[in-house]
Amino acid sequence: MTKLKLSLATAALAVLPGLALAQDVAPGVNPSTDTVFILNTLLFLIGGFLVFFMAAGFAMLEAGLVRSKNVAMQLTKNLALFSLASIVYWLIGYNLMYPLGTWNIEGVLSGVWGPGILEAVGVTADAADDYSYASTGSDFFFQLMFCAATASIVSGTLAERIKLWPFLVFTVVLTGVIYPLQASWKWGGGFLDAAGFLDFAGSTVVHSVGGWAALTGAIILGPRIGKYKDGRTVPMPGSNLALATLGTFILWMGWFGFNGGSQLAMGSVGDVADVSRIFSNTNAAAAGGAVVALILSQLLFKKPDLTMVMNGALAGLVSITAEPLTPGLGAATLIGAIGGVIVVFAVPFLDKLKIDDVVGAIPVHLVAGIWGTIAVVFTNSDASLGTQLYGIIVVGVFTIVASAVLWMILKVTMGIRVSEEDEINGLDMSELGMEAYPEFKSS
Amino acid sequence: MTKLKLSLATAALAVLPGLALAQDVAPGVNPSTDTVFILNTLLFLIGGFLVFFMAAGFAMLEAGLVRSKNVAMQLTKNLALFSLASIVYWLIGYNLMYPLGTWNIEGVLSGVWGPGILEAVGVTADAADDYSYASTGSDFFFQLMFCAATASIVSGTLAERIKLWPFLVFTVVLTGVIYPLQASWKWGGGFLDAAGFLDFAGSTVVHSVGGWAALTGAIILGPRIGKYKDGRTVPMPGSNLALATLGTFILWMGWFGFNGGSQLAMGSVGDVADVSRIFSNTNAAAAGGAVVALILSQLLFKKPDLTMVMNGALAGLVSITAEPLTPGLGAATLIGAIGGVIVVFAVPFLDKLKIDDVVGAIPVHLVAGIWGTIAVVFTNSDASLGTQLYGIIVVGVFTIVASAVLWMILKVTMGIRVSEEDEINGLDMSELGMEAYPEFKSS
Amino acid sequence: MTKLKLSLATAALAVLPGLALAQDVAPGVNPSTDTVFILNTLLFLIGGFLVFFMAAGFAMLEAGLVRSKNVAMQLTKNLALFSLASIVYWLIGYNLMYPLGTWNIEGVLSGVWGPGILEAVGVTADAADDYSYASTGSDFFFQLMFCAATASIVSGTLAERIKLWPFLVFTVVLTGVIYPLQASWKWGGGFLDAAGFLDFAGSTVVHSVGGWAALTGAIILGPRIGKYKDGRTVPMPGSNLALATLGTFILWMGWFGFNGGSQLAMGSVGDVADVSRIFSNTNAAAAGGAVVALILSQLLFKKPDLTMVMNGALAGLVSITAEPLTPGLGAATLIGAIGGVIVVFAVPFLDKLKIDDVVGAIPVHLVAGIWGTIAVVFTNSDASLGTQLYGIIVVGVFTIVASAVLWMILKVTMGIRVSEEDEINGLDMSELGMEAYPEFKSS
Repeated sequence: MTKLKLSLATAALAVLPGLALAQDVAPGVNPSTDTVFILNTLLFLIGGFLVFFMAAGFAMLEAGLVRSKNVAMQLTKNLALFSLASIVYWLIGYNLMYPLGTWNIEGVLSGVWGPGILEAVGVTADAADDYSYASTGSDFFFQLMFCAATASIVSGTLAERIKLWPFLVFTVVLTGVIYPLQASWKWGGGFLDAAGFLDFAGSTVVHSVGGWAALTGAIILGPRIGKYKDGRTVPMPGSNLALATLGTFILWMGWFGFNGGSQLAMGSVGDVADVSRIFSNTNAAAAGGAVVALILSQLLFKKPDLTMVMNGALAGLVSITAEPLTPGLGAATLIGAIGGVIVVFAVPFLDKLKIDDVVGAIPVHLVAGIWGTIAVVFTNSDASLGTQLYGIIVVGVFTIVASAVLWMILKVTMGIRVSEEDEINGLDMSELGMEAYPEFKSS
Repeated sequence: MTKLKLSLATAALAVLPGLALAQDVAPGVNPSTDTVFILNTLLFLIGGFLVFFMAAGFAMLEAGLVRSKNVAMQLTKNLALFSLASIVYWLIGYNLMYPLGTWNIEGVLSGVWGPGILEAVGVTADAADDYSYASTGSDFFFQLMFCAATASIVSGTLAERIKLWPFLVFTVVLTGVIYPLQASWKWGGGFLDAAGFLDFAGSTVVHSVGGWAALTGAIILGPRIGKYKDGRTVPMPGSNLALATLGTFILWMGWFGFNGGSQLAMGSVGDVADVSRIFSNTNAAAAGGAVVALILSQLLFKKPDLTMVMNGALAGLVSITAEPLTPGLGAATLIGAIGGVIVVFAVPFLDKLKIDDVVGAIPVHLVAGIWGTIAVVFTNSDASLGTQLYGIIVVGVFTIVASAVLWMILKVTMGIRVSEEDEINGLDMSELGMEAYPEFKSS
Repeated sequence: MTKLKLSLATAALAVLPGLALAQDVAPGVNPSTDTVFILNTLLFLIGGFLVFFMAAGFAMLEAGLVRSKNVAMQLTKNLALFSLASIVYWLIGYNLMYPLGTWNIEGVLSGVWGPGILEAVGVTADAADDYSYASTGSDFFFQLMFCAATASIVSGTLAERIKLWPFLVFTVVLTGVIYPLQASWKWGGGFLDAAGFLDFAGSTVVHSVGGWAALTGAIILGPRIGKYKDGRTVPMPGSNLALATLGTFILWMGWFGFNGGSQLAMGSVGDVADVSRIFSNTNAAAAGGAVVALILSQLLFKKPDLTMVMNGALAGLVSITAEPLTPGLGAATLIGAIGGVIVVFAVPFLDKLKIDDVVGAIPVHLVAGIWGTIAVVFTNSDASLGTQLYGIIVVGVFTIVASAVLWMILKVTMGIRVSEEDEINGLDMSELGMEAYPEFKSS
């Protein structure tokens, strides 16, 4: 078929079979109520599997950016954290988050064998939890993926030196309690939502929370051995930039689900056109971030830096996440581009502070997340700078305090850092007894 | 938009534009007949491309778990088996499977140039094969992917020692005849279906069939040289656990299409809510399997085992495949968790029997497939244990006999095992004359 | 649920809840106008993210087929070219392409902050650009991905010796001007469309354009040092065939969106059935290409060649792209198979001409693209061989001339080739100062 621009295409369609034929019954203008339910649910399912795939993106990004002696451990952490998040978000998180602490033991038990938070099998319209909207099961599926993404952010920063089990305990509390509690303040209809705080898909609620938890952990855990020596930063290049690039592309694709799905509806012309805007803006912001990081790294370091380009794209994505709907394509590109600038400056700045962030997750998710949350005020007239800062600070303080307390408890009880010897030998051999690339000699 | 829980969100939606506006024509409650057709077809298409991607997942999993000298061959096998399955399932399999041997040469010939099993171009409602349901082409596309997945299971077990061409001949017969025949007994409305055997998405029909074919092949082919020496099992670690983990994540994502698409309809509130249940349950089972394998491998071997975590997740997925709809999230997690237990014990058990399964496909697909088929009785009151066992046994005996005969014929005619020298040098150089990683020195 | 063949399934569905229940309002036969808009838009969004993922596919394919010393640079090029394409296609390309030069600076400026080519937020039916069809934003998103794919084709051929920045300048002109201009002749309703030239999803408009640009560049740039020595071709094997295979699978999956989305509508029974045909045919053609390349490489070279199998699959995909709708499954398989034949002969033939195409993109995208465009005449009675050749030649001459002029300007001004020393050391260390696999010793 000719790919005419829409106005032309419509004229062409009028003479095609299929659309014009067989008008046996007047179709009406609006979708039927059932159709709206189906389409909204479908958005959650498609968005959900795309955001699920971000777990693979994080795993590949991180596995590519750590040294080969820690790759198997990083993969283990990513598989394990997603799996644990799936369980605890079901047991605790989901009902803690929506709307504000509806969690109770009866609800959990009812879900152990029976339907629980899922609707009954073959539910009918009048029995559906929310017939005029969408299936509860699809909402759970979609929301779970956001919770798990928060934990994925933490694993990258703390790589190459944190012990597996305390990290997983942290994950359980983060995904079961910390994330859902603060998320309820905005997305559960809590006080931040009431205050007018705007965060469409989670620059603050997801990304900065992951970033604060990572930052707190990085400070308490300390840098890798040898990272900062005699006042300078020792580069510890990632072992597999092909994997890291793959991870970046996967995350980029997943973000269409992350932001697009956060429209939360596509059962009307306005909603599906909004999802289209969001897809286009999300892509534009990633592109803006990548291009700026490419150019800036060329200008500043004389050589373009692939890891900066990756993180530039990701920072662009985080930056547009708080408001992917209202900007035009140009504004979206600019908002993402500023995310790219942030990364190029924040990465060396963190190193100056001797905060060792192995994959650059703090610049990408925390700093760009803050920027993105502030940037809402430029394109959405409903946003107030004061309220946006209020939200950023409230969520930040809560996450810092909760994370710090938790990291300290873990440090005192289980210990969070591997021994010096284990760190030097690599976590793969010391903690797992296996290597990711056993046959390839490392230099 | 605020991500309120559904009950709150609905109230919010009522005041949003798009949904409430422009009710020029009463929309009615139900989707139109055409819309149901479109939505059902769309489920097959989305499910189909997700299951297609599982071919990449199997390829990465297997390429990561073989030694580097056999990686290029393993990749070749995976590309070739999927391609051959695509051709023979069209030529023979599809019409053999549905409903019970409707295959004839005229049907094949009509499809060589014209539409064949696809509907005519731009088909109208009254000419569609099944206007009240879905497009035949989408059904073919979806079903083909299940057939190909069956063959992917076999390639992993027999890696590192089987010759390429006899393996591909086996694939042709498996995907053209063995799989479709037994699948017709259940999914073609045959005697297992009539007997009340339940297998929603194929724990038995797909996974155990692949597993039995693999097991029979592994026994006839024998273990790799040096695998079992002086009564102990020699570890032959996979060359690239990052790829294997990527494969696991891809398979996990594909499974949403595998199980969710097997609802076979999403044109009603009940159907799409069921698809949502299935997505959530499928994820829960994978998580359960992974977490249990992680914990068990820590307890039993003192160190967590990444390959066990991967296979635990996959075993969880296979376990829930026979009934991903009726369980609640807790039951789904438990069913998957038992799949994880199975893997941790079945992998060393197979080694005790000196059955050499390179990637662990027999524990994952066969043993967990049997478990999953039995587990249907715990959550679906329509299932009877006797009938489930009957189906498992009938399919098992048929697949074992058919596979064994075929493997033996191939052994006698073409030979199925490479020479000792070729095996030691690796199949990549001996059979392909190329290496997957030519520049990386192996230790 | 039993996976009965459709005719059986329908009978079964009649007794299921959900479909038969709650017929409170007669549903009518056709989808409502809004529903058609939503479904068409959804096709663009799903198709769009699938084609987006092809960027990852190209990146992995190319990263796997270059030598390890050039991998990081190849990844950088792929991330950068996609990002730049996203920006210039928005700024210039899209409005140059549709319908024939509607580009103006006001249009661009309106999109810098406001909606521009996107519809307004929460657009209502009567305000939508094209209410009877689909969302403009979704069309932009989808079309952008085709433009970017064109540039991805070029990067592979010219790998391992072209400088980063001139390549990126070429990308900007290619995606901002060259691609959109010629695309407007067909898909913007221009003179090739008026002449009856048929190219459903872009065997010529996308693939041959990328191929011609790559060919022109390869000739002007010259072969890699040492590639042709004493009259023979020196093999320079790719460093990571696992990545390359992954890229092939990703491209294969993305092609369902590429061809299926090019139906441009799924809001009717005929359209969605056509999309189903296209998915099935696209898969059949890839399978045909892969199997033939496997068999031919065995016959001709005595050993099967994995890179030929990959490129065979891709050539099959390119071959079916000009007409994925009208063939039956058999014809689609044959059309793809001939693509596979083309690859096996065209790869060594290019080497004879001392045209150095690192990844085989010219055989796959240009030669198979021409074949696919011609092949339309065999299955679509609306096609005339003369017109197909006319289109191929017009687009070819234009792209060759435009590309050659541009490459020559770049050669004279910036220089397009790295120094001999840099090429031998690898672009990663010389241009980027980093390595993709820093820890793995190369032999």
